[in-house]
Amino acid sequence: MAAEQDPEARAAARPLLTDLYQATMALGYWRAGRARDAAEFELFFRRCPFGGAFALAAGLRDCVRFLRAFRLRDADVQFLASVLPPDTDPAFFEHLRALDCSEVTVRALPEGSLAFPGVPLLQVSGPLLVVQLLETPLLCLVSYASLVATNAARLRLIAGPEKRLLEMGLRRAQGPDGGLTASTYSYLGGFDSSSNVLAGQLRGVPVAGTLAHSFVTSFSGSEMLAPAAGEGPGVDLAAKAQVWLEQVCAHLGLGVQEPHPGERAAFVAYALAFPRAFQGLLDTYSVWRSGLPNFLAVALALGELGYRAVGVRLDSGDLLQQAQEIRKVFRAAAAQFQVPWLESVLIVVSNNIDEEALARLAQEGSEVNVIGIGTSVVTCPQQPSLGGVYKLVAVGGQPRMKLTEDPEKQTLPGSKAAFRLLGSDGSPLMDMLQLAEEPVPQAGQELRVWPPGAQEPCTVRPAQVEPLLRLCLQQGQLCEPLPSLAESRALAQLSLSRLSPEHRRLRSPAQYQVVLSERLQALVNSLCAGQSP
Amino acid sequence: MAAEQDPEARAAARPLLTDLYQATMALGYWRAGRARDAAEFELFFRRCPFGGAFALAAGLRDCVRFLRAFRLRDADVQFLASVLPPDTDPAFFEHLRALDCSEVTVRALPEGSLAFPGVPLLQVSGPLLVVQLLETPLLCLVSYASLVATNAARLRLIAGPEKRLLEMGLRRAQGPDGGLTASTYSYLGGFDSSSNVLAGQLRGVPVAGTLAHSFVTSFSGSEMLAPAAGEGPGVDLAAKAQVWLEQVCAHLGLGVQEPHPGERAAFVAYALAFPRAFQGLLDTYSVWRSGLPNFLAVALALGELGYRAVGVRLDSGDLLQQAQEIRKVFRAAAAQFQVPWLESVLIVVSNNIDEEALARLAQEGSEVNVIGIGTSVVTCPQQPSLGGVYKLVAVGGQPRMKLTEDPEKQTLPGSKAAFRLLGSDGSPLMDMLQLAEEPVPQAGQELRVWPPGAQEPCTVRPAQVEPLLRLCLQQGQLCEPLPSLAESRALAQLSLSRLSPEHRRLRSPAQYQVVLSERLQALVNSLCAGQSP
Repeated sequence: MAAEQDPEARAAARPLLTDLYQATMALGYWRAGRARDAAEFELFFRRCPFGGAFALAAGLRDCVRFLRAFRLRDADVQFLASVLPPDTDPAFFEHLRALDCSEVTVRALPEGSLAFPGVPLLQVSGPLLVVQLLETPLLCLVSYASLVATNAARLRLIAGPEKRLLEMGLRRAQGPDGGLTASTYSYLGGFDSSSNVLAGQLRGVPVAGTLAHSFVTSFSGSEMLAPAAGEGPGVDLAAKAQVWLEQVCAHLGLGVQEPHPGERAAFVAYALAFPRAFQGLLDTYSVWRSGLPNFLAVALALGELGYRAVGVRLDSGDLLQQAQEIRKVFRAAAAQFQVPWLESVLIVVSNNIDEEALARLAQEGSEVNVIGIGTSVVTCPQQPSLGGVYKLVAVGGQPRMKLTEDPEKQTLPGSKAAFRLLGSDGSPLMDMLQLAEEPVPQAGQELRVWPPGAQEPCTVRPAQVEPLLRLCLQQGQLCEPLPSLAESRALAQLSLSRLSPEHRRLRSPAQYQVVLSERLQALVNSLCAGQSP
Repeated sequence: MAAEQDPEARAAARPLLTDLYQATMALGYWRAGRARDAAEFELFFRRCPFGGAFALAAGLRDCVRFLRAFRLRDADVQFLASVLPPDTDPAFFEHLRALDCSEVTVRALPEGSLAFPGVPLLQVSGPLLVVQLLETPLLCLVSYASLVATNAARLRLIAGPEKRLLEMGLRRAQGPDGGLTASTYSYLGGFDSSSNVLAGQLRGVPVAGTLAHSFVTSFSGSEMLAPAAGEGPGVDLAAKAQVWLEQVCAHLGLGVQEPHPGERAAFVAYALAFPRAFQGLLDTYSVWRSGLPNFLAVALALGELGYRAVGVRLDSGDLLQQAQEIRKVFRAAAAQFQVPWLESVLIVVSNNIDEEALARLAQEGSEVNVIGIGTSVVTCPQQPSLGGVYKLVAVGGQPRMKLTEDPEKQTLPGSKAAFRLLGSDGSPLMDMLQLAEEPVPQAGQELRVWPPGAQEPCTVRPAQVEPLLRLCLQQGQLCEPLPSLAESRALAQLSLSRLSPEHRRLRSPAQYQVVLSERLQALVNSLCAGQSP
């Protein structure tokens, strides 16, 4: 799709979504005659998030959208002029007005790939001034997307393959597109669906949702329901539910006055609108004395008309314990009323579910079927930022390195290629970085590589070698269609399944290794020693 | 400004930015003939964030923008039709197409007000179907804005009034408008400026920024700088800096070859672009052996031409310790080279500064002047979500209440008014909620009020009474111009200054009290007892 036809491009493409220092540096480069020097930056992170040993790469589709639409409008340039020194040469602003990404080339880890510390998620090359300006927006678009995809993947690993995971964190997100990003990339990371309708509309994420407590409390039981018209059940569902209620209460040993009539009216109203997708929210008043009998009454009335209720939702209390007991009630009622489908009505739970609570809900024998997660997936509370960085690695064809006294902040110089070395079973052994001009490593050949901080190289003989970075934009042109979100999701699941159990652990003392080729290590050494390469 | 002239309205106004269950409930209400029932919702939070005893209300300007532009486009309705049952009555979609907020009325806590648990930040009334649909976007827009404003206010309280606080977290935010929201509302909460240019352009937040390590590493020292043209210093600054370097190195006891020539070239290039705002980033190579002497050489060369360097920035290592030592060097050099202004060059620090690190940097005698905070202010890592809720309190003029078995999740029924009761010194004593129809409490009169969970009422005689909620939108019309962001920021500072020291504490065991009027308490009691009010 051309950028100008993309309905999201306009919203995404705010070139001033950047730190002011990108603009001041741009003036500095321009003033020094270096605006068009060929430069290359790498975007990467330094540690896997959440104490784990893997991350998923994500955010590339947002970056591509941003880059293709990147252009400073007159109003943008005028604003920059208002915050830069008043005596700034007007020719600088003319330069800005003409900027776009038509000379920018991007190599990237495909979305859904496993990503490890120091291995570039993006390599961005082009004129120094432009690629510098892109730093902040690219970090903003990649870091959170990758963080939330990784977080979702962890939650999926905890939940196992069977439980359905619904992302419902829009209200907890950092504003509108925090929510959109979270919904998009938690799906990529392994969730099944999202409550966020916009993510469905714009990104094709499957959407899901039924009713909230406000729907239930809005009914008192005295309302006249609009008569069932058209395709709905053409009978008085409320009256039928009332008849069933008596049987249900007798079966459960409850007084027929106990279940709240407003709740029942709300369930009937919902069932009239969704006869084929009826779901009850059980805990507005009392699960056992009201929500469950009302649900059963309406579900059995619907069942009599040939419709099968879909599920119940719990949003408070001990979710696992209640699910076990509700399943027992469903089984007993299925036998009692001879409606076998009632046994397998879905039990949906939500309410501040974090990794620990999820592990409990996903345990062997749990009767929970669907788990809604909001805050914990969207805000990534264990580590709310990936800490991505964007570092200059070459300019004018010469490698560049930050040689700070803080060793963790040192960078790896030079334009690089990255490979994943795989064992004979296809599992990743380590990632290797080398200089771009080095020959591609061959499967089956012994390689001498340098682990970080090692005094000696070690050798490895990979059964397979995968190049990691794909040419994505070349001189501003998209090189191949981006995979669909669902394809990237499938890649994520496949990638995770190949990762060793040790590296898939949620708290991994064993970090996956990223190693340097001998020539790259030699370059680092020479720059550290203050020699030019 | 009319919504249609607002350049942000288009981006903000995505009515499908909502949870699907809002749409399914909308169909349920419509199907039950209740779409136009008069309803009222309240948006509030249940606990002050971060273990403190206060929060700041924020996000109202984003809500107003959203509400005024709210309208479902054809494509939106078509998308909803694609995810709702295929046999849904087409008249429902016609109803959706005609929706707007022209019958919606909003009362709100002004931005920058102190906000406490259970006191509505927004009261939203209008047709049930519409005000239900607004739940998720309003929560999304208010919760994070209030959270980050509160977080910023805490950081300001720690920093004290003198230190300058720069928000620089765009790259750590949840996507583009997570960053825009963070920059806007951290300014409201008490920060001085933001690095985010878009926040300057769209919101009028003061912007700040200078240079990053990439600028420094992009220079090797062998580049030809473009000759100084126009307004810059009309001399060879690089040559002048070289001359000064010898004096500086002699003064500091360093070899003249030690400071990195590329770093010096970068500083010269930056100084040529910003002769009146020169700032050096000191830690690309080595602060003591390179960054500091290079900065001094360029600053002294500039000084000779009549320009005063503005500051230095440190981004690694022990920031406080380095600042103290750098200030000593500045003082000694100021004396040695007879340039008194050098003593007071700003020392700017950044690098993962959280509340604890900030407290250390702000201690008595600290030589740090400006503190840049990114991750800690933007991601609110201590508690990344406010946990705001939006609850139905009345429908068809009748109070509504969620009577769940989880007492914390119970709601307060009825259309309410809220007042702040103040002592004679203007400090807030408690907030009081009462039914909307009750008479306004009078200053100086004794009031009987119910603290939460109390068995008995207590009495209070406030010296002053402030109504808390202002009519903001009436039937979709803005009632008064919203205050500017700077005005809301001033209100926040004033409000915080009046809060008692006990409630201003960052970990407050003493929570500020929110009490109910006798009639509101009686309504709660009657609904809990299952009686109709």
